[in-house]
Formats: sequence, structure tokens, C-alpha cells
Amino acid sequence: MPRKVPEFGPIITLTSDFGMADAYVAQMKLALLRHAPSARLVDVTHAIAPQDVLGGSIQLERAIAAAEPGAFHLAVVDPGVGSNRRILVTVLSEQTIVCPDNGLITWAWRRLGPGKSFELAWRPTHSSTTFHGRDIMAPALGMLASGTKLTKLARPIADPLLLDVHLADPADRAGRVIHIDHFGNATSNIPAEMLDPDDAVRIGRRSVNRIRKTYADVPPGKPLALIGSAGLLEIAVRNGSAQRTLRLKIGDEVTLVR
Amino acid sequence: MPRKVPEFGPIITLTSDFGMADAYVAQMKLALLRHAPSARLVDVTHAIAPQDVLGGSIQLERAIAAAEPGAFHLAVVDPGVGSNRRILVTVLSEQTIVCPDNGLITWAWRRLGPGKSFELAWRPTHSSTTFHGRDIMAPALGMLASGTKLTKLARPIADPLLLDVHLADPADRAGRVIHIDHFGNATSNIPAEMLDPDDAVRIGRRSVNRIRKTYADVPPGKPLALIGSAGLLEIAVRNGSAQRTLRLKIGDEVTLVR
Amino acid sequence: MPRKVPEFGPIITLTSDFGMADAYVAQMKLALLRHAPSARLVDVTHAIAPQDVLGGSIQLERAIAAAEPGAFHLAVVDPGVGSNRRILVTVLSEQTIVCPDNGLITWAWRRLGPGKSFELAWRPTHSSTTFHGRDIMAPALGMLASGTKLTKLARPIADPLLLDVHLADPADRAGRVIHIDHFGNATSNIPAEMLDPDDAVRIGRRSVNRIRKTYADVPPGKPLALIGSAGLLEIAVRNGSAQRTLRLKIGDEVTLVR
Repeated sequence: MPRKVPEFGPIITLTSDFGMADAYVAQMKLALLRHAPSARLVDVTHAIAPQDVLGGSIQLERAIAAAEPGAFHLAVVDPGVGSNRRILVTVLSEQTIVCPDNGLITWAWRRLGPGKSFELAWRPTHSSTTFHGRDIMAPALGMLASGTKLTKLARPIADPLLLDVHLADPADRAGRVIHIDHFGNATSNIPAEMLDPDDAVRIGRRSVNRIRKTYADVPPGKPLALIGSAGLLEIAVRNGSAQRTLRLKIGDEVTLVR
Repeated sequence: MPRKVPEFGPIITLTSDFGMADAYVAQMKLALLRHAPSARLVDVTHAIAPQDVLGGSIQLERAIAAAEPGAFHLAVVDPGVGSNRRILVTVLSEQTIVCPDNGLITWAWRRLGPGKSFELAWRPTHSSTTFHGRDIMAPALGMLASGTKLTKLARPIADPLLLDVHLADPADRAGRVIHIDHFGNATSNIPAEMLDPDDAVRIGRRSVNRIRKTYADVPPGKPLALIGSAGLLEIAVRNGSAQRTLRLKIGDEVTLVR
Repeated sequence: MPRKVPEFGPIITLTSDFGMADAYVAQMKLALLRHAPSARLVDVTHAIAPQDVLGGSIQLERAIAAAEPGAFHLAVVDPGVGSNRRILVTVLSEQTIVCPDNGLITWAWRRLGPGKSFELAWRPTHSSTTFHGRDIMAPALGMLASGTKLTKLARPIADPLLLDVHLADPADRAGRVIHIDHFGNATSNIPAEMLDPDDAVRIGRRSVNRIRKTYADVPPGKPLALIGSAGLLEIAVRNGSAQRTLRLKIGDEVTLVR
């Protein structure tokens, strides 16, 4: 007889620039749980640099790519809170994302989209002017996650606001650093599919060398290029930080050479 | 037919000065889950500065204000652990809070109270002398959250120890910075109800100007005063840090002027 | 009538050096929840210093010691990812741990073991070469937590790779600092059982004095030695940081004197 599996609720991930020192994230979670009491909450990160919409966009895409159809995502990096920027509901990869319409959906749209875009029309009776994540977005997503129909809360719109950030163009044989992680590994916008087995990688004036399979393929302290866990070309230093050793920063050019 | 909603357990929030680098928070969570296995745990913050009881007090109030009747809260900033300081159980806003009786309940008491105070009488068979959060408070709160009657574990006492921190007195037309958040926004102890539409705000010698609705009401980089998401007067810099730009610190005087 | 307790799933704790700024932890959690959808996830810490296997080992032991039979643990500090290092499944204290076979199990093995060791044989159809935590370890642990038999996924092996770190030898009357926590408290490898009531403690050339019961036994700012919450001799400074005040570091010798 199969083991009886308990019931379980929808998955909701959270991404923000709220940090971990204040109650803001908890306030959003309590609003989510009020409307979706059985939700399984998963923090993506709250360490996005304040107002860094691109950085938030990249982490949000990672969460969507790692989740399954039916998952929900709340992403709040919202410097325009209280202004007339729209609140976006996006359906993409059979998942539902609520975030400000300020470009936060960009990287998910580029890699996993296009999706379907809606403007959140629902508003609560009372709302602060400074924390729509707690007062509008979390309740709305909670309602969607517990079964409220999207058409009851939102209306279709044309494409969302997207940042001018793209996957590298295969014709260019070059791209840029779009993210640097906790280990100092630099991720580019060059997808695995663009690479030939014989490619070497140059970053700025520095040749990093052939593309390896994993960190352990070079001696400790040495730089390498490899396909990272997001399926993008990554520059790393084994047991070290490529960011520090190679002085990398977001926007640096990455070139493929034969 | 309505969608079947799974069962779900009590909400328990956690606030501490334990940081995120050690297993201390996990040890408290495992103790909570032992006694309240279906609890839905929500971290408020564990980044309270070590032994900063006032800072913990402010975050705890935020958690209580954001939760609903029936919620439970564990707050541990406990420099007196192992001494004869009492352990407090407070019932306030129809919610139950367990924390040391060292002032940690202060801000919730000022804004949402008064509550009813109890001294935790229950003790485990074995306890460390240095981690009552794990050994006494978490098990006790877990028992309460899973239905044990309060009177079985605690006895009524007169008011708890409260810090000398108060909501601003309307007669004073002035208050103080009581918290600075992750974005560098400074929250005062001046509640929205104390403000007139024509008030301007002065902090130290600097006039911040009229009270705005939201950050986007001033140009990027400019300071503003507004009602923050906690219903208190807040000093901010749009897309920047008021703490850095205006050199604010906790205790700075905030004055209302016409 | 007793209150109806909802069903609940297995406890799974997570320990890593992934930090909180990236989606890596969320990606592991989503993989765990895919295979063990009712799991109750508890973060131990993700702030292990990058590639610090000993530091991760100590936090993992704390999680196991605090959990109950039937709990599951995922620990990923994995500088050798993608190399031929094995993936370990350990059964210890009636709990199941999945981690790389690089010494991460050491401290749990020393304090709570020996356990039974297995090599994970299961591999997914597709895996990255850089993130086995997400692609191999989390799915495998999720399967075990939802009832898959260990023998279906892993084969018995002799003892795992263990670091040269041990509990202090009673004959030596001395040990070493093995961990410094968020408060600056230094934990040694000297267990409570090794201490006599009359022992005084010396660290480097500095005599810390008699062993106390708790922090409040000395004036604020003063150093003390006591049995910490892990049952090990700890050096602390009341309301301060022993690490800063006494300039302690991992590896420092701690001596018992009469």
C-alpha cells in the first residue's frame, strides 16, 4: 500500500531588495498566508541591491526556471512604489508572477518567454503608499495561489516594460557579464548553445582559456570558463573569486575566440 | 465545487539577534516543530544587533501588527539568559508572544497594548544555562501553539518590564528616530494621527520639507518625509539612503513645524 | 475532544556555503519539494565561508543534534563538485544525511557517530557539472524523505572521508577553538564531561578564570569560560565579543589548569 502523502499547498517564491534586517519580508509572507494559508513559501533572495531591477530580474528568472508548472512568484524591487507604474501579472512557463511593471520580468521574459501580460486591477480598501508588496501584490498573489481566477483581478495588456538586456546575439560571438554571485563567479548572457567545443574565452584583455566542464578541471586559484548551472557561460576561479582575482564587474565584455 | 483547501497549522514568527551564520535559529525551529509539528514558521529577522533589545522590540511589534488573531511569536534578544530575569508570555491583539522580560515587549505594548502579562513557570527537565530560546521559550511556545492552555504553563503577573520609549506626545510636536531600516529610511515615534497636512519636518537643523505621499513625489536623491508603512513619520531619500545622506542615527530629534 | 492535528511531512534541514544573495538555496528547496512535497524545510545556515568544509561540518552536527529520529539533512559545501569525489549518504542518530564525501560529515561522526555510510549511486538523466546540490543531492534526499528505500539509491561503503579534527583527548587537558559564532563566542572541542569543577581555563597566555554557569555571572565586558549550548567549553565576553576582545581565532589552544 502506498504511503499516504499529506495534502500540500501551492509553492510561492519571494524575491526582493528588502534585506534581512527588517520585518518587511515577514509582513509580505503573513499577507500571502492570509490569502493562501497552505502555501509553501520559498525565499529566493532578499539581498538584491536596493532598487537594482536588473539584479532582481536575474534571480527571479532562476526561481521560475527551477520551479514547476503551477508555481507562483512574488518579486518586489519597486523604486516607483506609489507612483503610477503598473503592477504586472505575468503567466509564463505555466507559472504566475506578480511584480511591478518596471522591468523586473525582463530576464524571465528573455529566457523563458514570451509570456502573457496582465495589469493588476485589484486594489485593497486600504493601502500604504510605500509598501505595495505587502498591501497589494502579496494579497493579490495569495488570492491567485488559492484559486481566484486571474480575470477577476487583472486585465490583459500588451507587452510589459522590458529592460534593454538580451541574450547574446550568436552573430556577435560576444556578450557581457550580467551577474556576479556570492562566490565571485561571473555569469554572462552567452547561452551554452552558442558555444563551440574549441572556443576560448576572453574577458577584457585577458584570455581565460578553453571552456572546462567543472571547477576541479583547473588547479586551485586558477581562472576558468565553464557552463554554469543556469546554462550560461560563466567565468570562475577555482576555490577563489573571479570577481576579485580578475576584477570583474557587471557589464564587462566577454568574447569568444577560436 | 470549491477547491479543497489543505489543513494548516498555527503561524509562529521568530525574531532574534542570533544572526544567520549559526545553527541557533534552526535549533529553535526544530524545538518549535517538535511541539507544534504543523506550525507555519515565519522569520521576522535574526539580524537584530547583538543585545539590542529596543531594536528587537520594534521588529517584534511589526510582526504582531502584520499577523492576525491566533498567531504566535517567539522573540529572543536575551543578554540576561541564565540570570533571574523572568520569561514573559504576553497576550496582546489576541496573539501570544513569548520573550524574555527585559523590555523586548515594549514597542508592541506601546502601540498595540496594553496586553495581559504572564510569567512562564514551565521549565524542562534539562536546560542549558545559555540558550533558553531553544531549551525553554521555543518548547513552551510550541506547546501553546499546539493547544496547551496558558494557565498550565504560566501565571499572571503585573505589567512587564518596559523600556523608556514611547510614542511621541502630541503636545510636544516632536519625536525621535527609533529605527533605521535596510534602505536607510529613518522611522520616528511620531504616528500619522499627530500630523497636520501643512506640517513640515525638521531633523536636527535640517528642514526636510512638507510631508509627501510616497518616494516618487520628489526627484531621485532628494530627501522627503512621509508616513511609512508602519503608520509612523519616516525620513527617506528617494532611491538613496537618508541615513547616509542626512547622517541620521537612532535618537535624533524630529520636529514638526508649520 | 482532542484538537485535530493536521498531517505533516518530514523535516529536512539545509546547510551550505551558498550565501543568501543568489537563488541557489531556493533551487535546492524547489528540487526537494518536487520529490518530498510535504517536507518541512529548516535552514541551518548558508553563511558557511566558501569552501569551509570544517565550518559546515560543525553546523551540520548542531542540526543533527537538535533534530529527532526520522529527520533528514542536506549539507552542501562542495569545492570538488564535478570531480570524482563521492556523494555520501549517512545514517546516524536514526537520521539521514546527504552531503559530499569531503569531510563535511566529520563533526557529526565524531560527536554522534559512528554512523552507517553509503555512496549515492543514483544519478539523474541530466545534471549540471557545477551544482550537484540542486541536480543530484536534493532530488536524492527528497526521494529518501518521501519514502524511497536507501538501498534503491545507494550502496554501503566503508567509513567516509573524515577531517583530522577530534574531540579533545582527556589525557591532554587541552583542546582547540573549533568555531566562533555570530556573537564572537569561541567554542572549543573540549566536552563538558572533561571538566572538573575546579578547573580554570587558559587561552594562549591569558587566564580566563574559573568556569561559570552563564554570561550574567561576570560583569559586562568581562571574559568568561562556560559550557555552551552545544555541551562544549566556550570562551565568551559578557555582552561583548570574545573574538574581538581576546583576539581569538580558530585553532587557538585552550588549556585546563588547576
